[in-house]
Amino acid sequence: MLGSGFIGRFYADAINGNRSKDKIVSVYSRREESAKKFAADYTVAFATTKMEEAIARPEVEVVCISLPNNIHEEAVMLCCKHKKAVITTKPLGRNAMEAQRMLEAVEKAGIFNGYLEDLVYTPKFLKALESVKGGSLGRILWAKSRETHPGPHSDWFWDIEQAGGGCILDLGCHCVEISRSYIGKDIKPVEVMCWADTQVKPIDAEDHAIGLVKYENGAIGQFEVSWTFRGGLDLRDEVMGTEGTIWINSFLRTGFEMFTSGKSADYVAEKAESNSGWLFPVGDEINELGYNHMFMDMFSALEKGTAPKETFYDGYVVNAVLDAAYRSAKSKLWEPVQLNIWRGKTGVSKDSHLQSYDNDHYLVKEEVTHYGAKKVILKNKNSGKIVEKTL
Amino acid sequence: MLGSGFIGRFYADAINGNRSKDKIVSVYSRREESAKKFAADYTVAFATTKMEEAIARPEVEVVCISLPNNIHEEAVMLCCKHKKAVITTKPLGRNAMEAQRMLEAVEKAGIFNGYLEDLVYTPKFLKALESVKGGSLGRILWAKSRETHPGPHSDWFWDIEQAGGGCILDLGCHCVEISRSYIGKDIKPVEVMCWADTQVKPIDAEDHAIGLVKYENGAIGQFEVSWTFRGGLDLRDEVMGTEGTIWINSFLRTGFEMFTSGKSADYVAEKAESNSGWLFPVGDEINELGYNHMFMDMFSALEKGTAPKETFYDGYVVNAVLDAAYRSAKSKLWEPVQLNIWRGKTGVSKDSHLQSYDNDHYLVKEEVTHYGAKKVILKNKNSGKIVEKTL
Amino acid sequence: MLGSGFIGRFYADAINGNRSKDKIVSVYSRREESAKKFAADYTVAFATTKMEEAIARPEVEVVCISLPNNIHEEAVMLCCKHKKAVITTKPLGRNAMEAQRMLEAVEKAGIFNGYLEDLVYTPKFLKALESVKGGSLGRILWAKSRETHPGPHSDWFWDIEQAGGGCILDLGCHCVEISRSYIGKDIKPVEVMCWADTQVKPIDAEDHAIGLVKYENGAIGQFEVSWTFRGGLDLRDEVMGTEGTIWINSFLRTGFEMFTSGKSADYVAEKAESNSGWLFPVGDEINELGYNHMFMDMFSALEKGTAPKETFYDGYVVNAVLDAAYRSAKSKLWEPVQLNIWRGKTGVSKDSHLQSYDNDHYLVKEEVTHYGAKKVILKNKNSGKIVEKTL
Amino acid sequence: MLGSGFIGRFYADAINGNRSKDKIVSVYSRREESAKKFAADYTVAFATTKMEEAIARPEVEVVCISLPNNIHEEAVMLCCKHKKAVITTKPLGRNAMEAQRMLEAVEKAGIFNGYLEDLVYTPKFLKALESVKGGSLGRILWAKSRETHPGPHSDWFWDIEQAGGGCILDLGCHCVEISRSYIGKDIKPVEVMCWADTQVKPIDAEDHAIGLVKYENGAIGQFEVSWTFRGGLDLRDEVMGTEGTIWINSFLRTGFEMFTSGKSADYVAEKAESNSGWLFPVGDEINELGYNHMFMDMFSALEKGTAPKETFYDGYVVNAVLDAAYRSAKSKLWEPVQLNIWRGKTGVSKDSHLQSYDNDHYLVKEEVTHYGAKKVILKNKNSGKIVEKTL
Repeated sequence: MLGSGFIGRFYADAINGNRSKDKIVSVYSRREESAKKFAADYTVAFATTKMEEAIARPEVEVVCISLPNNIHEEAVMLCCKHKKAVITTKPLGRNAMEAQRMLEAVEKAGIFNGYLEDLVYTPKFLKALESVKGGSLGRILWAKSRETHPGPHSDWFWDIEQAGGGCILDLGCHCVEISRSYIGKDIKPVEVMCWADTQVKPIDAEDHAIGLVKYENGAIGQFEVSWTFRGGLDLRDEVMGTEGTIWINSFLRTGFEMFTSGKSADYVAEKAESNSGWLFPVGDEINELGYNHMFMDMFSALEKGTAPKETFYDGYVVNAVLDAAYRSAKSKLWEPVQLNIWRGKTGVSKDSHLQSYDNDHYLVKEEVTHYGAKKVILKNKNSGKIVEKTL
Repeated sequence: MLGSGFIGRFYADAINGNRSKDKIVSVYSRREESAKKFAADYTVAFATTKMEEAIARPEVEVVCISLPNNIHEEAVMLCCKHKKAVITTKPLGRNAMEAQRMLEAVEKAGIFNGYLEDLVYTPKFLKALESVKGGSLGRILWAKSRETHPGPHSDWFWDIEQAGGGCILDLGCHCVEISRSYIGKDIKPVEVMCWADTQVKPIDAEDHAIGLVKYENGAIGQFEVSWTFRGGLDLRDEVMGTEGTIWINSFLRTGFEMFTSGKSADYVAEKAESNSGWLFPVGDEINELGYNHMFMDMFSALEKGTAPKETFYDGYVVNAVLDAAYRSAKSKLWEPVQLNIWRGKTGVSKDSHLQSYDNDHYLVKEEVTHYGAKKVILKNKNSGKIVEKTL
Repeated sequence: MLGSGFIGRFYADAINGNRSKDKIVSVYSRREESAKKFAADYTVAFATTKMEEAIARPEVEVVCISLPNNIHEEAVMLCCKHKKAVITTKPLGRNAMEAQRMLEAVEKAGIFNGYLEDLVYTPKFLKALESVKGGSLGRILWAKSRETHPGPHSDWFWDIEQAGGGCILDLGCHCVEISRSYIGKDIKPVEVMCWADTQVKPIDAEDHAIGLVKYENGAIGQFEVSWTFRGGLDLRDEVMGTEGTIWINSFLRTGFEMFTSGKSADYVAEKAESNSGWLFPVGDEINELGYNHMFMDMFSALEKGTAPKETFYDGYVVNAVLDAAYRSAKSKLWEPVQLNIWRGKTGVSKDSHLQSYDNDHYLVKEEVTHYGAKKVILKNKNSGKIVEKTL
Repeated sequence: MLGSGFIGRFYADAINGNRSKDKIVSVYSRREESAKKFAADYTVAFATTKMEEAIARPEVEVVCISLPNNIHEEAVMLCCKHKKAVITTKPLGRNAMEAQRMLEAVEKAGIFNGYLEDLVYTPKFLKALESVKGGSLGRILWAKSRETHPGPHSDWFWDIEQAGGGCILDLGCHCVEISRSYIGKDIKPVEVMCWADTQVKPIDAEDHAIGLVKYENGAIGQFEVSWTFRGGLDLRDEVMGTEGTIWINSFLRTGFEMFTSGKSADYVAEKAESNSGWLFPVGDEINELGYNHMFMDMFSALEKGTAPKETFYDGYVVNAVLDAAYRSAKSKLWEPVQLNIWRGKTGVSKDSHLQSYDNDHYLVKEEVTHYGAKKVILKNKNSGKIVEKTL
């Protein structure tokens, strides 16, 4: 385990949890006291402030990187050097160039690589994606993911140099991969329009952004990210398809509601802003946030010698989309997604919006009205005229 | 009452409802049987297929226009001619040019004019706006409004010539006025970015669109509109402020849930797509959709000789924003909102995002972490350095 | 209007609201300053501290009683004397004996009488009842109504002498009429089991109670009432039928959610306990609580010369059920409902629970299992043996 | 693993899941093909139709009983004979007498024993209980648990001989242990009032029941159970305390909502009744229903040589409460809970409901009214008079 901060602890809880056969055997932290505390808390045999030492230990089978964004590349290169399987927290790089270098390095080194995008491993997401793949929603038209909260926990996130960006990079990486998964990971993201601003926080990076990602088949991904949201951690996805809709609320409304006068004061949930009044705790944060299923996929894939569902390649694609978002926020234009490496379909055309009703007409709509009548609205294929027929 | 279709009936239900002292005395419809049926259903004394005749009747105090978009202007001009107070369904015009002509005409004629934007009169909206005005949310950063459903009821909506556009014009007019109200109707909308596409329906107009509206003070309005949504009428607003959040669901989740095996089949709610399984009816559609409070404001203002909350001027501003959205959907650029007439503030500057913590620092964040610690994240005013302090 | 307190003001808001043609012309209050303040707030021409004076005024067409429970009878008798139509807030009496005397008096006097049970007039209830009557839920098995909050607003409620009881009488009257309406107002309530206790408040009356009401057809009504609930006004109904389910939340979860840091402090909603954190206001309390539709029914019935949906007879039945509840809470037995006056069906037998599948079997259950199989569970009509068949 | 049916498969999924180090090594089923299929599906080395053989295998460390209720005792006795740790599905026995015999047998044999009451191990329950223990709700007044659905999956449930009862035994056992945990497992349940009926299903056992369980400290547990509910699996808990409230929805409303036209037809969730329209799947049923955390507690306790949170003793207490419920449903009286074995507190008195405001008064209520005033309602300690004071 490289890193002993907030996210490292979440990972450790997940790896150690639930009767697991997996074990953390070595931990690196930049600060000695952190390394020691982490080692004590999670009974890790070896703790060090030297990254390479932590990686090189012979008992280490897979290296888990939970470090600030600006050190990912260095850590990955050391894993390549020592031929250790590597899994890296999100985002993969601060930008696509870094991500591409990491991707090329691990592939050249021939090592197992996993991209720790937990939010495509949440139980709700996994089930929803299964329904989408099974056709319950028909053709996917739009997939939005929203992650907003009152700001990250660690100081380095707020420093644009270390973090590489603001909430777009921190939160948008989740949203982009969620939308992309619903639309199809083999469908190419082609261009991005993004608005971003620093509305509330005294920082150089953006604290609020909204982006649209156009895919080659005409589907639209949308992200809404912010560090200025009040009320806790807002984590929601919405998907529209020709045959259905999915709404997922992963955090603030999950069927657990508590009112308390506040005479006793507990930790309620990640990024909760209050501990009195109506509160919305989450039963099992680790599981709800996808950490269990993510490590299950990673370690099982490693054992079986296959690739996990999320690899450095996916991290690279996400970084490329986010780079386009940053460019767009500045240029105010739809910016193309620059993908030097693309392994999905190419030349996909937009799906047709013409559904036949009979030989002469397209079907616009079928419905039952307010006052009981059943009717269809049709468009004549030749004249283009719209007509209404009560059946 | 001009028009006897779907919306005219909703209006009539509202005007006649709840021990009202108001009465419909004259109705015009393009088709004689519709005029007669409407007159019978709502006990209206006079029914005609000649618009001017319906308007000119001496007992008519106020003319309510519930006609297809392309006939609004003609009807308004007749009201001017006969000096009758006029209230018009949304959108005011098919574009800002039409809207401006109508606005100038009614003002020149000196007649009372009201813009029937019901969704800024829903009980939830009225209460939410009061909280926003009272400061419960602090400075407003973002106000989104979403209206999507499986498509409108009447044929003319689907004909771009009569309607003047697709879902942007039909639904976006609601969303723009909702967002604008939260942000402040005196704050100028300056530019718009919009994506629009025809993804599902065999029509010339757009059936799905997403737009961002930038206001002069840096706040962002957002609209999400579609005629391709599956599952009913999705009507939701979300507002983010520096001190709070509002989430309103006006239709599909209002605290009324019903499961039925479907052995009996009722009308459930506007745009419901099913009458078995889990259904989400609305208690009192007329009231929930704002019709009661809208007519209350209109008629009370008329009696008092004041302007209602929504006038043709508001309808004009909305049309101007939507025109920019249509231009943007084509140009793929942020398009300026062209307002020949603007009566709000000008030269408003963006609000500052620098909140002092002490003499030397700005406050980035205050929080209680996962493992119980209380800390602040600060930014040095001179060096720009981010530091974390545990208190 | 007799009474100028909390409920009188709610009534006045409803009567005066929404372009109403109805008007309050006379007000009585026990305290002069209250009478005057009410008259000023609602522009009532005549205010007095003498009840009979308020009633006798010639311009008064209908008397609305919003007084403490112990004065209802006196007020009703005065209405009888002056032959004025009378509508009375809930509960009708402090017990069935009082209620019976009032019922007999108004009927003897031949005056219009209405029972102001607003919660069977909420928009959600009206629509739900329509679905139930239309058969969407099949045969009704169970109808629960829950009303709990942190306690009433006025001092007299807490005094068992004036109020006649605690939360059973104050809140149970709503719940009993709601359940009874779903099950069928012509079905006789036969016996009641009730638990009641004083768990939190330093009072003589009960502050928490749960009761079951058995109806002649085997259906069960349930009430859950309390003055000790924390978190606001919890107002929910649940109905189970053979073909469906209804869940109604009338107050705390109606699709309006607000988070506020609390820097501004507003009135949020009836019985809200907080004005910061996550709050759940109601759009239009008057309408959501049924006041508008209740007065609409009352006044329209009066005009038409018919009975309103809720009369003193209904108030009497409710009191009789509550009396049985009080007896049961003491005796710990199922207590019979003593109805000297009953105008519904008699001798109704329990509905059969035997649904045939084929000549030899009853159908126990049809289902699709976890692992995809479709099966039926049947009971042999002769042997009683349960068998499972995969189809 | 004894038993290979619906619940056995759920258990196996939980035991094998999530990178687990635990393994099923032997399976018994009454039918050979079931035993073989289970062994194949879960790669179990040994399968048999002889129960004792399955238990006696030397590699078996703990025996998991997933059999119909009427065979629990036989299986437990075999575990005692072979001195194998044993964990048994709920309910422990068909009645308290069976449960007591099993409890005494395992304790005499000195073997580890666990009671598989999964619903006190759901992530939401665990977190809620922690809050309750931490004081967030103050003193617990009432704890309700509701489990209703359209009926169980296997035929034996419907046969009163094998099952020992209907929905009270099948579902009430969950609800009783949930309420008891919130109220305090050391507080004695003293008496039970229960209504039960067979309203819909052609069976001898009850298909709908509601019960109240009074605890020695005055707190009330409530269960609502049914096999006649329409709409899926309704699994909700509600807790009221002097300082707060908890509402948990474990199944039908967990933040996952899907609408589908139904052109594709999937398995949605346990006891779902439809696969089109609005559906409410659960992300990870195994985890949401508590199976993971339950086995984690069981196996960890076994390793550490401690007792798990739920033992045969708890199963026995639950059976004793349910026996009282069955007696009450027949006698229509509050029936005492007969506990030959009780290991909690005794002689607990009811908590006081008298909260002092000042020397002379108790505090009845503090509030902010509709029209802005702040007031307290007080009761004089001597005179008992209720007074209202505006502060």
